Amino acid sequence: MPKNKKKIINDPVYGFINIPEGLIFDLIEHRYFQRLRRIRQLGLTYLVYPGAIHSRFQHSIGAMHLTSLAIEVLRGNGQEITEAEAEGLMIAVLLHDIGHTPFSHGLEKNIFSNLSHEEFSLKFMNILNEEFNNKLSLAISIFKGEYKKKFLHQLVSGQLDMDRLDYLRRDSFFTGVHEGTIGSDRIIQMLKVVDDKLVVEAKGIYSIEKFLIARRLMYWQVYLHKTALAAELLLVKIFERVKELYNRAEKFACSEMFADFFESNFKNDKELIEKYSQLDDYDIYWVIKQWINCDDKILSELSANLIYRKLPKIILSKEKFDEDYINTLKNKLQKQLKISEHEVKYFLFNGSVSNNAYSNIDDRINILYKDEIIDISDASDILNLSILSKVIKKHYVCTPKNL
Amino acid sequence: MPKNKKKIINDPVYGFINIPEGLIFDLIEHRYFQRLRRIRQLGLTYLVYPGAIHSRFQHSIGAMHLTSLAIEVLRGNGQEITEAEAEGLMIAVLLHDIGHTPFSHGLEKNIFSNLSHEEFSLKFMNILNEEFNNKLSLAISIFKGEYKKKFLHQLVSGQLDMDRLDYLRRDSFFTGVHEGTIGSDRIIQMLKVVDDKLVVEAKGIYSIEKFLIARRLMYWQVYLHKTALAAELLLVKIFERVKELYNRAEKFACSEMFADFFESNFKNDKELIEKYSQLDDYDIYWVIKQWINCDDKILSELSANLIYRKLPKIILSKEKFDEDYINTLKNKLQKQLKISEHEVKYFLFNGSVSNNAYSNIDDRINILYKDEIIDISDASDILNLSILSKVIKKHYVCTPKNL
Amino acid sequence: MPKNKKKIINDPVYGFINIPEGLIFDLIEHRYFQRLRRIRQLGLTYLVYPGAIHSRFQHSIGAMHLTSLAIEVLRGNGQEITEAEAEGLMIAVLLHDIGHTPFSHGLEKNIFSNLSHEEFSLKFMNILNEEFNNKLSLAISIFKGEYKKKFLHQLVSGQLDMDRLDYLRRDSFFTGVHEGTIGSDRIIQMLKVVDDKLVVEAKGIYSIEKFLIARRLMYWQVYLHKTALAAELLLVKIFERVKELYNRAEKFACSEMFADFFESNFKNDKELIEKYSQLDDYDIYWVIKQWINCDDKILSELSANLIYRKLPKIILSKEKFDEDYINTLKNKLQKQLKISEHEVKYFLFNGSVSNNAYSNIDDRINILYKDEIIDISDASDILNLSILSKVIKKHYVCTPKNL
Amino acid sequence: MPKNKKKIINDPVYGFINIPEGLIFDLIEHRYFQRLRRIRQLGLTYLVYPGAIHSRFQHSIGAMHLTSLAIEVLRGNGQEITEAEAEGLMIAVLLHDIGHTPFSHGLEKNIFSNLSHEEFSLKFMNILNEEFNNKLSLAISIFKGEYKKKFLHQLVSGQLDMDRLDYLRRDSFFTGVHEGTIGSDRIIQMLKVVDDKLVVEAKGIYSIEKFLIARRLMYWQVYLHKTALAAELLLVKIFERVKELYNRAEKFACSEMFADFFESNFKNDKELIEKYSQLDDYDIYWVIKQWINCDDKILSELSANLIYRKLPKIILSKEKFDEDYINTLKNKLQKQLKISEHEVKYFLFNGSVSNNAYSNIDDRINILYKDEIIDISDASDILNLSILSKVIKKHYVCTPKNL
Repeated sequence: MPKNKKKIINDPVYGFINIPEGLIFDLIEHRYFQRLRRIRQLGLTYLVYPGAIHSRFQHSIGAMHLTSLAIEVLRGNGQEITEAEAEGLMIAVLLHDIGHTPFSHGLEKNIFSNLSHEEFSLKFMNILNEEFNNKLSLAISIFKGEYKKKFLHQLVSGQLDMDRLDYLRRDSFFTGVHEGTIGSDRIIQMLKVVDDKLVVEAKGIYSIEKFLIARRLMYWQVYLHKTALAAELLLVKIFERVKELYNRAEKFACSEMFADFFESNFKNDKELIEKYSQLDDYDIYWVIKQWINCDDKILSELSANLIYRKLPKIILSKEKFDEDYINTLKNKLQKQLKISEHEVKYFLFNGSVSNNAYSNIDDRINILYKDEIIDISDASDILNLSILSKVIKKHYVCTPKNL
Repeated sequence: MPKNKKKIINDPVYGFINIPEGLIFDLIEHRYFQRLRRIRQLGLTYLVYPGAIHSRFQHSIGAMHLTSLAIEVLRGNGQEITEAEAEGLMIAVLLHDIGHTPFSHGLEKNIFSNLSHEEFSLKFMNILNEEFNNKLSLAISIFKGEYKKKFLHQLVSGQLDMDRLDYLRRDSFFTGVHEGTIGSDRIIQMLKVVDDKLVVEAKGIYSIEKFLIARRLMYWQVYLHKTALAAELLLVKIFERVKELYNRAEKFACSEMFADFFESNFKNDKELIEKYSQLDDYDIYWVIKQWINCDDKILSELSANLIYRKLPKIILSKEKFDEDYINTLKNKLQKQLKISEHEVKYFLFNGSVSNNAYSNIDDRINILYKDEIIDISDASDILNLSILSKVIKKHYVCTPKNL
Repeated sequence: MPKNKKKIINDPVYGFINIPEGLIFDLIEHRYFQRLRRIRQLGLTYLVYPGAIHSRFQHSIGAMHLTSLAIEVLRGNGQEITEAEAEGLMIAVLLHDIGHTPFSHGLEKNIFSNLSHEEFSLKFMNILNEEFNNKLSLAISIFKGEYKKKFLHQLVSGQLDMDRLDYLRRDSFFTGVHEGTIGSDRIIQMLKVVDDKLVVEAKGIYSIEKFLIARRLMYWQVYLHKTALAAELLLVKIFERVKELYNRAEKFACSEMFADFFESNFKNDKELIEKYSQLDDYDIYWVIKQWINCDDKILSELSANLIYRKLPKIILSKEKFDEDYINTLKNKLQKQLKISEHEVKYFLFNGSVSNNAYSNIDDRINILYKDEIIDISDASDILNLSILSKVIKKHYVCTPKNL
Repeated sequence: MPKNKKKIINDPVYGFINIPEGLIFDLIEHRYFQRLRRIRQLGLTYLVYPGAIHSRFQHSIGAMHLTSLAIEVLRGNGQEITEAEAEGLMIAVLLHDIGHTPFSHGLEKNIFSNLSHEEFSLKFMNILNEEFNNKLSLAISIFKGEYKKKFLHQLVSGQLDMDRLDYLRRDSFFTGVHEGTIGSDRIIQMLKVVDDKLVVEAKGIYSIEKFLIARRLMYWQVYLHKTALAAELLLVKIFERVKELYNRAEKFACSEMFADFFESNFKNDKELIEKYSQLDDYDIYWVIKQWINCDDKILSELSANLIYRKLPKIILSKEKFDEDYINTLKNKLQKQLKISEHEVKYFLFNGSVSNNAYSNIDDRINILYKDEIIDISDASDILNLSILSKVIKKHYVCTPKNL
């Protein structure tokens, strides 16, 4: 009797996903990739949308799945993609987030010396390439945009990349914000390659308009939801405090956990990655829970506020807040809490966030008409796309609820 | 043991729908309303989207269901709506399409002396009002916009009326164009009444943007799909020919079926409505099938083309077609088919369609901010809403496939 | 630029369905197949479940789609299926219902001389085979169960055939009885061929149990829903009356419509099929609407009852009804309606229905264990499958509502 | 302008869930309840079904939501439920899992002195009752089954309780095992109370059959999935080792974390619960990650195996494994790993699991016929329900993969 060797993963979003045996399967089994099971896709957003607890593991598998669909469509539309290129592309997409920071980008700055998660992902890929006898070279070349067929890189990182198509749909699914659902099937069906560029067939223009609007909706309704943002900023404040205490050489619980990262104390990338690969959301959450009982009152209170979901009040505004206004508030709070001027910044802080999801203006969404290729901003008569490519900035001020 | 008197309808879109007993239940049971089971919501669109065979019966029940949700939300938000008003509103929505022409608006002109389906609906309501001892008076008053609480009429007919919220979602569901799905739940949750006007809370703005874009997508992808449009125009041509033959007093099969309507041969509205109420999609389809075998070659061929799905070729353009170009085509076709100059217009015709779904510029979507109400066109920075309120016109020319 | 030649149908149930170009595409375009657009899958069931208006066209396309998935899975599991076999199989499934009677099996007896729809389908296929230069021969051979690879026929007609997998899921979708949803994906994923027999892998046993229970649920909740059954029986009574009037050579409206069928007045199959192919739901419905105004009081009342949804009351029972009881009722009704003894049978009638969906006991669902193949009835410890293979009979009596 | 005071939670399964203000809202905000956000509903099952990472927080909210629907239906069917009873019932359901152990029942024995999570939940409720000035007394009375209206307790804990209706549907949703989906809407619609007992209307019998089969499917496909079971058993082994080391007073990393629990070292329930409430999945996972690097080789290897997903091989059987066979395996493994006879039990172990989900035979599913109430096992002719109420036992043996 024939032995069934299929590897299939059950995905709530797409149904069955076939996992190719061999290299791709082995990469998924690798403990570096398994770590992504313990990193949430949307960080602290689950404090607003309780369903938003899906992991980067699921997202990475999903993006790889969409990639395999896109490969099939592009081949059907006459574009040659060799078996090796297909595997390389799928690996590049599969591993695009392998170096993701636990929780949130906010921690990159405060713990990991400003290394971005893309840089970490590349380091991971290089080390895996060594381990797997250079079988990832083509994938890395596509990931870095160095491979000759440029459209392959566009599928990894571009306005319509498989990362984005998956995360928008998946985040919409798990948050329950069904309006954010994008028609990933239809968009993929409409893809073609012309002159080594990814284009969308003309009749797909309404799907693209809808994709851009759904993305925008997700942005404001989920990614920059004010309560989720408040939680995120609180998390960053916790680590700012931790770093300050560390730099002042003060003793506090679990201070050693991040010492090597604070001091960039690694012989080489291999050592860095090995240590880094041991960190996930569980460490961050656990250590914050410990800090609730630490000696430093500031750290203790910030930590309790996060764990017990006593989030700061946040006010958003299109204008910058007046400095005098902020200072008045700070004075008031300082007296109320009886803390130093320096310490007040942990409880009352302002700044700005910007919608950098659309800032990638070098990459275009090209619409294919009978005899020309037109950028979506010119092809669409309804969307004011200059808005989308503009960086939207919102100013915020966070204060304790009872101020 | 308690007797279960609930009336529940199973709806594939919303699940269970509760039907209030009493007047509303009786109206649904009435043969005038039951006729809507035999009128498709999307006419000939099912020739393109095979699933699009849902009926106006389903749509009317669905719209009534959304109305009951909206009533609950508005009451929860502090707006008084009496029991009588609630029933009146639900009836007005339930019956808004009761006078719908079989198949398509295109037949209004050619069979029914240009009476619109709204006018027919009102005639139906008036007759039902007599039959039900004036219990529909409040409903009619709301339907006509004469009732003092104006926001009730907005729920029947307006930019965010329950009709639209249901049909967009339902048409999206049955065509399988899932991208057109609108978040009717969320929009309804965001509704409020301020100064007797329906408004949407500020945080609902992204849902409204998405609603407008989804509507536009449905418009081009479904409602004005070129193949569906070709089928529709073919249907109109069939009835143009029928009317011509009738006016020339020529004999042809089943000519008597529409005679009374051609001649507006009714003593009063009651007689008109009684006769009209006996017409549905089945009559139109059946008679066209008969005409396949009638003596008039033109009518016979047009009819066969519709039934066997040999639809004309259609070309769309933003510009008006050049008249010389059309005439050259007509000459060529006349020779090819060996027909008279007069007859060629049944096989080759041009004209224009316009997107009048958005033309209702008197009614606004109001967004409620903390201290002001702003129209969506000013509130949204991304949508170029002047486009939406502009009438978009597309010119078409239809020809036989083999011309 | 590459021309996009894909043919894709949007299906609300499965999403995009690819239509292979060439023979299959041409068969779908054929007017014989297009007729299926005008035959509802569930006849009069839409009088209970308003959404149940999907067509046999949709179902046939859907079943073909599942077939293409099954072919892929079986090939992946090591079973050879040639390109010609794959096409033949897909055609056999696509056309399995092409000869379906309008509305319901009940009409087979009263109009079409007891020819079953399977027999009609085969006649259609033979005529199409002529038209298409014998390209359907392999499909016909698979359809008839004559082809050497027997498992191919099992996919057309068997306990787990693609017909059933599609209609259960589709009927569940459109009725809104979501509980009837079966896991067609998972079942197909578990299919294998062993010794030319279709088997299900052992770990699929719970899916099969659920499939059987869902089928049963659909049976009682939808296919034999008492109100739908009452409508169906009323339809049959209408045609019994029509046939009686015809046999008595009485004049009545539209009597000629079915004359050729009543008298089996056809030179050959070709003529029969040509005439038959012109009949669809629209004819049946239309003619019944005409009969509302015909001279025969009985036919007129029965017709009005169906169109205006004044359905008979139906009582179901496990036991046969006592004949004396029935006769007493008949006497009472005869007096009430002032009709003859003979005529009373059109308004008060009894009989039985049976659950013949499970009667196909020759075909088994085989479960594949490591070293043996076991029938589901032995493999499942929970289902009392002798029940499923037994014919369940329910007796009914129908009477006017006010008796 | 009216202030919007609604609290709404977005749930991917049911859509919007309204949270009543006041006591219920305050309970949800409480840090005891917030802790449920950090306890996965399905423990380690996500290692097999990556989507199965939903929390007991979501489940508890969902079960409360279904409760509010059931209350509405029961009231509509004539059963009086006072406002206080409704609130009490909703709280009892909301808090039924508040005392849940992190991860899995397996830990109850090894860490928490065999206190069940129901016992913990009750302790939590009592402490909350104190804190909220006895406002939970009615809820507690319903929870314990002491309240006079017994059917209320059936909704909290019974064959058709809201807990079960939610978790089956939710687990099905998040695992992506869509076949397990139950028709919670329809079942709730069919509920009635007769003689203070929850019954299901006769026409709901097929839904109940399907519910039982879906539950069984979920049981074998998800809850007792062999890989998930292997992971679970590995987790238990880790804590067995930890406890052994602790009892032997050996030093190892983080040994103090569970000391108080090992020694039941609490002055009173309040102290116990306070400490217990600080434990969640994060602690368990984190500490296991630490143990990868601890001195004890056994604990280190077990921990690494769990974190890096090197799960034991598991063999299931209906029969008990032969002891000689097990001993032979143990000897072989002992030599292979060079460990003591005592230590081998951490890597090779056998036992049995049983399907105790159905063991609750005291509580029945009652089907309401016209004049009698019949238990589902007698009412259903297809389901061999003696099987369901029987405890099904499966024997397992776990070994390292390379043995």
